[in-house]
Amino acid sequence: MIVTTVSVQVKPEHVDAFIEATADNHRHSIKEPGNLRFDVLQQRDDPCRFTLYEAYETEEAVAAHKETAHYRRWRAAVEPWMAERRLGIAHRVLYPAEVARWKS
Amino acid sequence: MIVTTVSVQVKPEHVDAFIEATADNHRHSIKEPGNLRFDVLQQRDDPCRFTLYEAYETEEAVAAHKETAHYRRWRAAVEPWMAERRLGIAHRVLYPAEVARWKS
Repeated sequence: MIVTTVSVQVKPEHVDAFIEATADNHRHSIKEPGNLRFDVLQQRDDPCRFTLYEAYETEEAVAAHKETAHYRRWRAAVEPWMAERRLGIAHRVLYPAEVARWKS
Repeated sequence: MIVTTVSVQVKPEHVDAFIEATADNHRHSIKEPGNLRFDVLQQRDDPCRFTLYEAYETEEAVAAHKETAHYRRWRAAVEPWMAERRLGIAHRVLYPAEVARWKS
Protein backbone atom coordinates (compact mmCIF):
# COMPACT_ATOMS: atom_id res chain seq x y z
CA MET A 1 0.00 0.00 0.00
CA ILE A 2 1.10 3.54 -0.76
CA VAL A 3 -0.26 6.71 0.79
CA THR A 4 0.51 10.04 -0.81
CA THR A 5 -0.20 13.15 1.21
CA VAL A 6 -0.62 16.22 -0.96
CA SER A 7 -0.41 19.65 0.62
CA VAL A 8 -1.99 22.52 -1.30
CA GLN A 9 -2.02 26.23 -0.50
CA VAL A 10 -4.88 27.90 -2.39
CA LYS A 11 -5.28 31.59 -3.15
CA PRO A 12 -8.10 32.88 -0.91
CA GLU A 13 -10.31 33.96 -3.81
CA HIS A 14 -10.24 30.44 -5.29
CA VAL A 15 -10.99 28.37 -2.21
CA ASP A 16 -14.61 27.63 -3.14
CA ALA A 17 -13.69 26.64 -6.68
CA PHE A 18 -10.86 24.47 -5.39
CA ILE A 19 -13.21 22.62 -3.04
CA GLU A 20 -15.67 22.02 -5.88
CA ALA A 21 -13.00 20.72 -8.28
CA THR A 22 -11.50 18.52 -5.55
CA ALA A 23 -14.92 17.09 -4.67
CA ASP A 24 -15.18 15.96 -8.30
CA ASN A 25 -11.71 14.39 -8.13
CA HIS A 26 -12.67 12.66 -4.86
CA ARG A 27 -15.93 11.23 -6.24
CA HIS A 28 -14.21 9.69 -9.24
CA SER A 29 -10.98 8.62 -7.53
CA ILE A 30 -12.71 6.48 -4.89
CA LYS A 31 -14.22 4.44 -7.72
CA GLU A 32 -10.84 3.57 -9.25
CA PRO A 33 -9.75 -0.05 -8.90
CA GLY A 34 -6.95 -0.08 -6.36
CA ASN A 35 -8.01 3.11 -4.61
CA LEU A 36 -8.44 2.66 -0.87
CA ARG A 37 -9.09 6.23 0.22
CA PHE A 38 -9.13 9.73 -1.11
CA ASP A 39 -9.72 12.03 1.85
CA VAL A 40 -9.98 15.78 1.45
CA LEU A 41 -9.11 17.88 4.49
CA GLN A 42 -9.05 21.60 5.18
CA GLN A 43 -6.56 22.88 7.74
CA ARG A 44 -8.41 24.28 10.72
CA ASP A 45 -6.25 27.33 11.38
CA ASP A 46 -5.73 28.11 7.68
CA PRO A 47 -8.77 27.47 5.48
CA CYS A 48 -6.67 28.12 2.38
CA ARG A 49 -4.51 25.06 3.10
CA PHE A 50 -5.69 21.59 2.16
CA THR A 51 -4.39 18.07 2.56
CA LEU A 52 -5.35 15.24 0.22
CA TYR A 53 -4.77 11.74 1.59
CA GLU A 54 -4.61 9.29 -1.27
CA ALA A 55 -4.23 5.59 -0.43
CA TYR A 56 -3.71 2.97 -3.13
CA GLU A 57 -3.11 -0.75 -3.04
CA THR A 58 -0.23 -0.77 -5.52
CA GLU A 59 2.25 1.37 -7.38
CA GLU A 60 0.38 0.51 -10.59
CA ALA A 61 -2.86 1.89 -9.17
CA VAL A 62 -1.08 5.15 -8.26
CA ALA A 63 0.25 5.41 -11.81
CA ALA A 64 -3.18 4.61 -13.29
CA HIS A 65 -4.72 7.41 -11.20
CA LYS A 66 -2.44 9.94 -12.87
CA GLU A 67 -3.72 8.84 -16.29
CA THR A 68 -7.40 9.31 -15.50
CA ALA A 69 -9.51 12.05 -17.04
CA HIS A 70 -10.69 13.25 -13.62
CA TYR A 71 -7.14 13.64 -12.30
CA ARG A 72 -6.02 15.51 -15.40
CA ARG A 73 -9.10 17.74 -15.27
CA TRP A 74 -8.46 18.50 -11.59
CA ARG A 75 -4.77 19.22 -12.13
CA ALA A 76 -5.43 21.63 -14.99
CA ALA A 77 -8.25 23.39 -13.15
CA VAL A 78 -6.48 23.95 -9.83
CA GLU A 79 -3.03 24.85 -11.19
CA PRO A 80 -3.74 28.61 -11.47
CA TRP A 81 -5.50 28.67 -8.09
CA MET A 82 -2.50 27.59 -6.07
CA ALA A 83 -0.49 30.12 -4.07
CA GLU A 84 2.55 27.83 -4.16
CA ARG A 85 3.58 24.58 -5.79
CA ARG A 86 1.75 21.62 -4.27
CA LEU A 87 3.80 19.12 -2.31
CA GLY A 88 3.13 15.41 -2.65
CA ILE A 89 4.91 12.99 -0.30
CA ALA A 90 4.78 9.22 -0.77
CA HIS A 91 4.68 6.91 2.25
CA ARG A 92 4.67 3.24 2.93
CA VAL A 93 2.02 1.98 5.31
CA LEU A 94 3.07 0.51 8.65
CA TYR A 95 -0.33 0.29 10.41
CA PRO A 96 -2.94 -0.88 9.88
CA ALA A 97 -1.00 -3.50 7.93
CA GLU A 98 -4.04 -5.40 6.64
CA VAL A 99 -5.42 -4.04 3.36
CA ALA A 100 -8.98 -4.96 4.43
CA ARG A 101 -8.75 -2.39 7.21
CA TRP A 102 -8.24 0.34 4.59
CA LYS A 103 -11.41 -0.43 2.68
CA SER A 104 -14.44 1.54 3.74
CA MET B 1 -14.87 14.88 12.37
CA ILE B 2 -11.34 16.03 13.06
CA VAL B 3 -8.18 14.68 11.48
CA THR B 4 -4.83 15.51 13.03
CA THR B 5 -1.74 14.81 10.97
CA VAL B 6 1.36 14.46 13.10
CA SER B 7 4.77 14.70 11.48
CA VAL B 8 7.69 13.18 13.37
CA GLN B 9 11.39 13.19 12.52
CA VAL B 10 13.11 10.38 14.42
CA LYS B 11 16.84 10.03 15.12
CA PRO B 12 18.13 7.18 12.91
CA GLU B 13 19.27 5.04 15.81
CA HIS B 14 15.78 5.10 17.35
CA VAL B 15 13.66 4.27 14.30
CA ASP B 16 12.97 0.66 15.31
CA ALA B 17 12.03 1.61 18.86
CA PHE B 18 9.81 4.40 17.55
CA ILE B 19 7.95 1.99 15.26
CA GLU B 20 7.42 -0.44 18.15
CA ALA B 21 6.13 2.26 20.53
CA THR B 22 3.88 3.69 17.82
CA ALA B 23 2.47 0.24 17.00
CA ASP B 24 1.39 0.02 20.66
CA ASN B 25 -0.22 3.48 20.46
CA HIS B 26 -1.99 2.45 17.22
CA ARG B 27 -3.36 -0.82 18.68
CA HIS B 28 -4.88 0.94 21.68
CA SER B 29 -6.01 4.11 19.93
CA ILE B 30 -8.17 2.32 17.35
CA LYS B 31 -10.16 0.84 20.24
CA GLU B 32 -11.04 4.24 21.73
CA PRO B 33 -14.68 5.28 21.42
CA GLY B 34 -14.76 8.03 18.83
CA ASN B 35 -11.60 6.98 17.05
CA LEU B 36 -12.10 6.48 13.33
CA ARG B 37 -8.54 5.87 12.20
CA PHE B 38 -5.01 5.89 13.48
CA ASP B 39 -2.77 5.27 10.48
CA VAL B 40 1.01 5.07 10.84
CA LEU B 41 3.04 5.93 7.75
CA GLN B 42 6.76 6.01 7.00
CA GLN B 43 7.97 8.49 4.40
CA ARG B 44 9.36 6.61 1.42
CA ASP B 45 12.37 8.82 0.68
CA ASP B 46 13.20 9.39 4.36
CA PRO B 47 12.61 6.36 6.61
CA CYS B 48 13.29 8.52 9.67
CA ARG B 49 10.20 10.62 8.97
CA PHE B 50 6.74 9.42 9.98
CA THR B 51 3.20 10.67 9.61
CA LEU B 52 0.42 9.72 12.01
CA TYR B 53 -3.09 10.23 10.67
CA GLU B 54 -5.51 10.40 13.57
CA ALA B 55 -9.22 10.72 12.79
CA TYR B 56 -11.81 11.25 15.52
CA GLU B 57 -15.54 11.80 15.47
CA THR B 58 -15.55 14.71 17.90
CA GLU B 59 -13.41 17.25 19.72
CA GLU B 60 -14.21 15.42 22.95
CA ALA B 61 -12.82 12.18 21.55
CA VAL B 62 -9.59 13.98 20.58
CA ALA B 63 -9.30 15.38 24.11
CA ALA B 64 -10.02 11.96 25.65
CA HIS B 65 -7.23 10.41 23.54
CA LYS B 66 -4.72 12.75 25.14
CA GLU B 67 -5.75 11.51 28.59
CA THR B 68 -5.26 7.83 27.83
CA ALA B 69 -2.47 5.77 29.38
CA HIS B 70 -1.30 4.56 25.95
CA TYR B 71 -0.97 8.09 24.58
CA ARG B 72 0.94 9.28 27.63
CA ARG B 73 3.19 6.22 27.50
CA TRP B 74 3.90 6.81 23.80
CA ARG B 75 4.59 10.53 24.28
CA ALA B 76 7.03 9.93 27.11
CA ALA B 77 8.81 7.10 25.29
CA VAL B 78 9.30 8.84 21.94
CA GLU B 79 10.18 12.31 23.23
CA PRO B 80 13.96 11.67 23.47
CA TRP B 81 13.99 9.85 20.11
CA MET B 82 12.83 12.82 18.06
CA ALA B 83 15.31 14.81 15.99
CA GLU B 84 12.99 17.83 16.06
CA ARG B 85 9.75 18.84 17.75
CA ARG B 86 6.80 16.94 16.31
CA LEU B 87 4.23 18.94 14.36
CA GLY B 88 0.52 18.23 14.74
CA ILE B 89 -1.95 19.95 12.41
CA ALA B 90 -5.71 19.77 12.93
CA HIS B 91 -8.06 19.60 9.95
CA ARG B 92 -11.74 19.54 9.31
CA VAL B 93 -13.00 16.84 7.00
CA LEU B 94 -14.53 17.82 3.67
CA TYR B 95 -14.74 14.40 1.96
CA PRO B 96 -15.87 11.77 2.55
CA ALA B 97 -18.48 13.72 4.51
CA GLU B 98 -20.33 10.66 5.86
CA VAL B 99 -18.90 9.35 9.15
CA ALA B 100 -19.80 5.76 8.16
CA ARG B 101 -17.25 5.98 5.34
CA TRP B 102 -14.50 6.56 7.92
CA LYS B 103 -15.20 3.43 9.89
CA SER B 104 -13.21 0.39 8.86
